Amino acid sequence: MITPRTLQGFFDYLPQDMLIRQYVKDTWRGIFEKYGYGQLETPSLEYAEILFGKYGEEEKLIYNFKDHGQRHVALRYDQTVPLARVIAQNLGSKITLPFKRYEIGRVWRADAARKGRKREFYQCDADIIGSSSLLCEAEILSLLHDGFNAFGLTDHVIVISHRSLLKVFLEELVIPKEKVPEIYRAVDKYDKIGLKGVEKELENREIPRKKVHQILNFIDNSTTDNQKALQNLEKNIGKNKDGREALKQIHQLISYLTLSDIASQNYRINQALVRGLDYYTGIVFEVTVPRFGTNSLAGGGRYDDLLTMFTHEKITGTGVGIGFEPLCMALEELHLHSGARTISDILVTIFDKSLIQPCLEITHALRKQGVKAELYLIEDEKIGKQVKYADKKNIPYTLVYGLDEHKEKTVILKNMNTGEQQKIKKTTFLQSPKQYLVSKT
Amino acid sequence: MITPRTLQGFFDYLPQDMLIRQYVKDTWRGIFEKYGYGQLETPSLEYAEILFGKYGEEEKLIYNFKDHGQRHVALRYDQTVPLARVIAQNLGSKITLPFKRYEIGRVWRADAARKGRKREFYQCDADIIGSSSLLCEAEILSLLHDGFNAFGLTDHVIVISHRSLLKVFLEELVIPKEKVPEIYRAVDKYDKIGLKGVEKELENREIPRKKVHQILNFIDNSTTDNQKALQNLEKNIGKNKDGREALKQIHQLISYLTLSDIASQNYRINQALVRGLDYYTGIVFEVTVPRFGTNSLAGGGRYDDLLTMFTHEKITGTGVGIGFEPLCMALEELHLHSGARTISDILVTIFDKSLIQPCLEITHALRKQGVKAELYLIEDEKIGKQVKYADKKNIPYTLVYGLDEHKEKTVILKNMNTGEQQKIKKTTFLQSPKQYLVSKT
Repeated sequence: MITPRTLQGFFDYLPQDMLIRQYVKDTWRGIFEKYGYGQLETPSLEYAEILFGKYGEEEKLIYNFKDHGQRHVALRYDQTVPLARVIAQNLGSKITLPFKRYEIGRVWRADAARKGRKREFYQCDADIIGSSSLLCEAEILSLLHDGFNAFGLTDHVIVISHRSLLKVFLEELVIPKEKVPEIYRAVDKYDKIGLKGVEKELENREIPRKKVHQILNFIDNSTTDNQKALQNLEKNIGKNKDGREALKQIHQLISYLTLSDIASQNYRINQALVRGLDYYTGIVFEVTVPRFGTNSLAGGGRYDDLLTMFTHEKITGTGVGIGFEPLCMALEELHLHSGARTISDILVTIFDKSLIQPCLEITHALRKQGVKAELYLIEDEKIGKQVKYADKKNIPYTLVYGLDEHKEKTVILKNMNTGEQQKIKKTTFLQSPKQYLVSKT
Repeated sequence: MITPRTLQGFFDYLPQDMLIRQYVKDTWRGIFEKYGYGQLETPSLEYAEILFGKYGEEEKLIYNFKDHGQRHVALRYDQTVPLARVIAQNLGSKITLPFKRYEIGRVWRADAARKGRKREFYQCDADIIGSSSLLCEAEILSLLHDGFNAFGLTDHVIVISHRSLLKVFLEELVIPKEKVPEIYRAVDKYDKIGLKGVEKELENREIPRKKVHQILNFIDNSTTDNQKALQNLEKNIGKNKDGREALKQIHQLISYLTLSDIASQNYRINQALVRGLDYYTGIVFEVTVPRFGTNSLAGGGRYDDLLTMFTHEKITGTGVGIGFEPLCMALEELHLHSGARTISDILVTIFDKSLIQPCLEITHALRKQGVKAELYLIEDEKIGKQVKYADKKNIPYTLVYGLDEHKEKTVILKNMNTGEQQKIKKTTFLQSPKQYLVSKT
């Protein structure tokens, strides 16, 4: 006999685990659709050549193998490269620009095994392809703001920067080109290692002390006052053309955010944000929830060259990736999943085998009224065990219909949270059951 | 440059394709949850040993390979074997019986390449594990009835049989044991090849002519009258104990169906239904929609030994598999997808670049009212091209807010289906926009 087990990094999600995951999916889907994004689904398997050569060193984590026809195939590593493929493949036929799509799907990475590390997980992305307007960035930030508010994470902070800001500043400092990526990487750690940490990293990279201090001074965002941050940037950027353009874009974006009712405490201009991925070329952003620590729960920005892997056309895009798994964790940790529903609203118990038929009728009548009603499916089970089943499944109400109730034409409704019971006329209850089934908050 | 292409049998679903697929998913999910089924998700990859040895000859279609740790792994072939694994693995800890779950997910089969044949496709299953009550069969049939009605397929027919009926009849005919599976296979084709076809198949298998005619007589279900069908069965089954038990169960099931308001034209007792899968042991059923041909759109039944592959415990179950892909095809062919929503309710156009800010405000106000409002995201685009975009995306309304409207504080709303335009006071429109956006049927 085979021992039932799962691969490390792969997880079963049982009904009680799925409630929060489905809630997160549904909420984002609702938000994306409110903003006019269409859903896209791409295959789990691609020709390996579609994925390889796109992820740098990380590509060693791609699951790949020879299929039955000896084709070299690979499991999807993210949803971004397939998006680029889909657009290159369908542009001018099935796809017209601007193209707005979201996708919430599984990806696979053969990452080093650590406790809880997932090798199969969900990504949740939205992108706008084919428009250079800053309305795109504004729309995605407004969408994120709506989404995080919907989860009760109203204290989220959208950190905003522009890739040119640090770039221009380093150019003006005459930093040798080969040092620039190392500086990016060091600055990117600012949130985690602090100013002292960045200082150490830069000194280890043999940047002259004076320049280190100028860099630290530039990225120090100890101010949460956006106006002050902009004034500081104004001074640092000087007359540099790319820098001025970046600042102009930030100002324009802020005016759009204001029009979309995003309060200034929900965003912060922070030139220390660079975002690791090389392909960003303009505005970049990340969302954090301070209560949940410094890890970002979403991030994205403007990119210009995504499609050049598959087509000569240069098409600009703006996108965001929402950390589906971290967000589920955050909501669980912060107990912010009251929006996740229970599986059933009520369990109709079978008190006596002779009463199965009326119990089935009651269940049927409840479902007709839109109540998620479950009939206990084992005949001849003790009532105590049935109620325990409801308790285990977190079903908020149980209904008992015994011989007395049958005679009196009543039902007994038990609130599983308070333990309260009430006897109600059967017809009264079935006329408007939702009135009695006030789900817990 | 890499040519963008997909593997044969793997498909991209663009936003316009996803509408119907999401509609089918959402509808079943709503039905399953109304009946108290919880959602389960199992991994895409399993240890190969979990899947091999479960599917007979078909197992050659399982995608399998060595992963980075040289483990032999395989892509999920169906959702049933993983269900059995999950239960065996969690019984008594995370899972208590009866356990009701649904799953709508992807499976992979390296099937022979034919036009349109999918190597990655969705399955949509619901099962009840751990109850031998006929309430299970009744519940699943009621759920199917509700589901097919929800799609407007009110003329669906649930064909019902019991595995013992044909078995007992063949026993009474003293058919040699080794011939029985062949007869099952022949009878299973009845819907496709007709009585004449079955006759030919049986004669080819060297069944004596007299017995062939007795078998044909038994399976001939030219009557759609359930009462008559039951009377015929009564005669054929005689006093055989297993046969009597099967008939008793069918009678009991019918009484439950009547209690659940399922009209008798929606089900048909048909002893010719055997269902290919070996593991069924009791009531079996299939759903067909005559308008869509003889292919079944769902099928299932009672099984007793599913879990024995992973545990010594014998646990009974009842389940159904709904043909997700055939159902999507049927709904498309029969134009029954009015329930599939459009991506956006309205496109807010940008008539003049100077009016971007009020257009953004209008869009924002619409979204606040729950309208799926899309702002056209390219500045400086001709209005004709913007309207064309709405047309291509099937957006039912466009809003124009030009310089005149800005002065007059009005908006122009265009119904894209009728071509009608109306000028409305901006504040009036934004107070209750849904009143004006009556979506097409």
